[in-house]
Amino acid sequence: MKTVYIGLLGCGNIGSGVTKLLAEMRAEWRENYQVDPVVKAILVRDLSKQRPEYVDTSLLTDDKDRVLMDPEIRYVVECLGGEHPSADWMCEALRAGKHVVTANKMALALHWRELHDASESGRASLYFEAAVGGAMPIIKILHDSLQANRIDRLTAIINGTTNYLLTRMTEEGLDYQDVLKDAQALGLAEPDPTADVEGEDAMYKLSILSSLAFHRHLPVTDIEREGMTHITQDDIRNAEELGYRIKLLAHATNTAEGMDAYVSPMLVPAHHPLASVQGAFNAVFLHGHACGDMMIYGRGAGSAPTAGAMMSDLINAILQTADDRAPQASARENEAPAVMLKDRVSAFYIRLSAQDTTGVLAQVAASLSERQIGVKALLQPVERATEGAQITILTHPASEKNVRAAIAAFDKRAVRVMNVLRVEASDL
Amino acid sequence: MKTVYIGLLGCGNIGSGVTKLLAEMRAEWRENYQVDPVVKAILVRDLSKQRPEYVDTSLLTDDKDRVLMDPEIRYVVECLGGEHPSADWMCEALRAGKHVVTANKMALALHWRELHDASESGRASLYFEAAVGGAMPIIKILHDSLQANRIDRLTAIINGTTNYLLTRMTEEGLDYQDVLKDAQALGLAEPDPTADVEGEDAMYKLSILSSLAFHRHLPVTDIEREGMTHITQDDIRNAEELGYRIKLLAHATNTAEGMDAYVSPMLVPAHHPLASVQGAFNAVFLHGHACGDMMIYGRGAGSAPTAGAMMSDLINAILQTADDRAPQASARENEAPAVMLKDRVSAFYIRLSAQDTTGVLAQVAASLSERQIGVKALLQPVERATEGAQITILTHPASEKNVRAAIAAFDKRAVRVMNVLRVEASDL
Repeated sequence: MKTVYIGLLGCGNIGSGVTKLLAEMRAEWRENYQVDPVVKAILVRDLSKQRPEYVDTSLLTDDKDRVLMDPEIRYVVECLGGEHPSADWMCEALRAGKHVVTANKMALALHWRELHDASESGRASLYFEAAVGGAMPIIKILHDSLQANRIDRLTAIINGTTNYLLTRMTEEGLDYQDVLKDAQALGLAEPDPTADVEGEDAMYKLSILSSLAFHRHLPVTDIEREGMTHITQDDIRNAEELGYRIKLLAHATNTAEGMDAYVSPMLVPAHHPLASVQGAFNAVFLHGHACGDMMIYGRGAGSAPTAGAMMSDLINAILQTADDRAPQASARENEAPAVMLKDRVSAFYIRLSAQDTTGVLAQVAASLSERQIGVKALLQPVERATEGAQITILTHPASEKNVRAAIAAFDKRAVRVMNVLRVEASDL
Repeated sequence: MKTVYIGLLGCGNIGSGVTKLLAEMRAEWRENYQVDPVVKAILVRDLSKQRPEYVDTSLLTDDKDRVLMDPEIRYVVECLGGEHPSADWMCEALRAGKHVVTANKMALALHWRELHDASESGRASLYFEAAVGGAMPIIKILHDSLQANRIDRLTAIINGTTNYLLTRMTEEGLDYQDVLKDAQALGLAEPDPTADVEGEDAMYKLSILSSLAFHRHLPVTDIEREGMTHITQDDIRNAEELGYRIKLLAHATNTAEGMDAYVSPMLVPAHHPLASVQGAFNAVFLHGHACGDMMIYGRGAGSAPTAGAMMSDLINAILQTADDRAPQASARENEAPAVMLKDRVSAFYIRLSAQDTTGVLAQVAASLSERQIGVKALLQPVERATEGAQITILTHPASEKNVRAAIAAFDKRAVRVMNVLRVEASDL
């Protein structure tokens, strides 16, 4: 039996959940792994704050060095969240040779290189399964199972809140604002939903996934980002009629020409496995040269899956290092900065509103064809008095620059551009 | 740089593919892992047989001990296939402390316990990612990532051939025999398709997956098995009208009352993620107490994904054992035999043919209701002169014993039972 000492940074929802789970799993770990996990110190900001009864208050401290400087503590579980001081303290722990477990996607995405360097200099590992995809072991799969693959493409639903909102908008015909209020009342969306609905959360996660998948750091500043608050029932119905569903996707490609990454609402073909991802579920769809198309699907974030994934990381960290093995390999990362594509090819969905539809259609068609943009489908439902006629165009794949230029050239007095969305066009 | 010596059992399609891939990856492994993989001996039956030009014929031998008895060879890749002598030689290698990589689902499923015991006695690991699900890392996920979960349910599409046949039958309205001929011409089905279409292949794979997921060996003799050759266009169209797709599923549950396992064609709700698994793709859908629902989806077997998965296993074996770590843990397996359920609860699809539909319907409804079997939906299309009227019934979940008894009690002179299929009824 080997006793391992663990330090916690933070004791909020996740931190106290971790102490509870650790106490519950202690007997099992002792029996199955001959490991006795002991929490030695828990860093908190406010010693006088009331804690759940299962937190041993004698372990609480407001001195970070009781966790970061204690040589007996070999494992640090970071449960503070946010960028600072989490990132700094994780670096400090790693440099001191302590293995770190975290779910902090923001600190990871924004300080990837520093954490990586700290991990190398301290010969300690950083585990972050819980940062992306809740209960899905996507980080481990990218790390361990797909080394024989060159992954060139990754498309993911990695924000449960927005997928929940879009699912209910699709299934119940409700508007964004109404579903949002409901989701907030149910605790499924934050009082301030910005980070989710504007795609920031998905952006951090995409940075982490891409950096692992492509073996090259993809900073968040290289990720184009568009939220989903402008999606209306008209878009959802049009998409349905054309054979698609609207999803907020995080998408990244890595080819010989360069990398490309964005978070945006997209039309997904109804028969595509990503289209069947409903509610708060997450999924990562990827393509590798050896494995071909692959998808992993599972429950997204949530306190139980998050704490569970952290426990799984912790026992992996303990078993990996029980005999002082080298840290989790990330040595293969290419340090040259990512070269980003200047343009991309995508099919587009364009929804327009106009009074004189015949004339407008001619003008719009001309503007598209001048720029070699083919029209794949056109929807023109019965006119509605209030907002003129709607015209919806689905293009063939084309240069995004050309599509944006064509749209910019539409005659603004005759036609209003209501929405422009990319179309997921993998050839499944 | 550490030189590792590898022995191959067999040099057919997979074996020669492995030697080719190893040669291709040698530079990368040397650079990334400081490991130099050297094939030292290749066991073949017939030394005089012509081999591909990339096979070094000086390594060929027909003496198994050149592989199994050479103390320098620490890694054995089994590429013989079939039950014997593969299983025996793998046991021998493991007992001699050699780590073994295999894709042989039949030998694994039929000799699970012996292989397990040999692995323990030789303190050597057995790697078999390639045996189930081709390129999907499902074995590794069950082994490494889901330890914190008690998995209670597993439903999988794990035979690419039958899923390809059913997909084409569904999409093109073709009959089984026609699609089969086509698939055979394309090399997607064997000249003798029995092992695939009768569910034997899926049965071996289900035995392996369940044994890992439930930490208790599920022998193939405990798996009920039904093939898919009796599925007709009528069934596929009826299922579609009721909102389902027909898939050949491998299904296993593990609850406090006992285990249950079967391979059979089933109706899957159209919105279920498994319904979107098309063509030769595979998917494993599972439920764990901590992770909830999870699915992994990917390309099924095929020589490239199989050899790729074996390479991935081999490098994992080498990195795991580079410093003589303990073998891959399977210590948690419960050795008590599985207690199988005597009955199961499932919804059923029942397709009948009758002349006098009104009278028959009354009799059938009475027989079902006597046994507390609720009818959820009923289809009765326009009569066709040739085979009388079709009646299709979808029941609510009920005791399978009761459903079978009710069907057995139908009046055989008035009604013909055309097909009876289970319905996948997870509450997604």
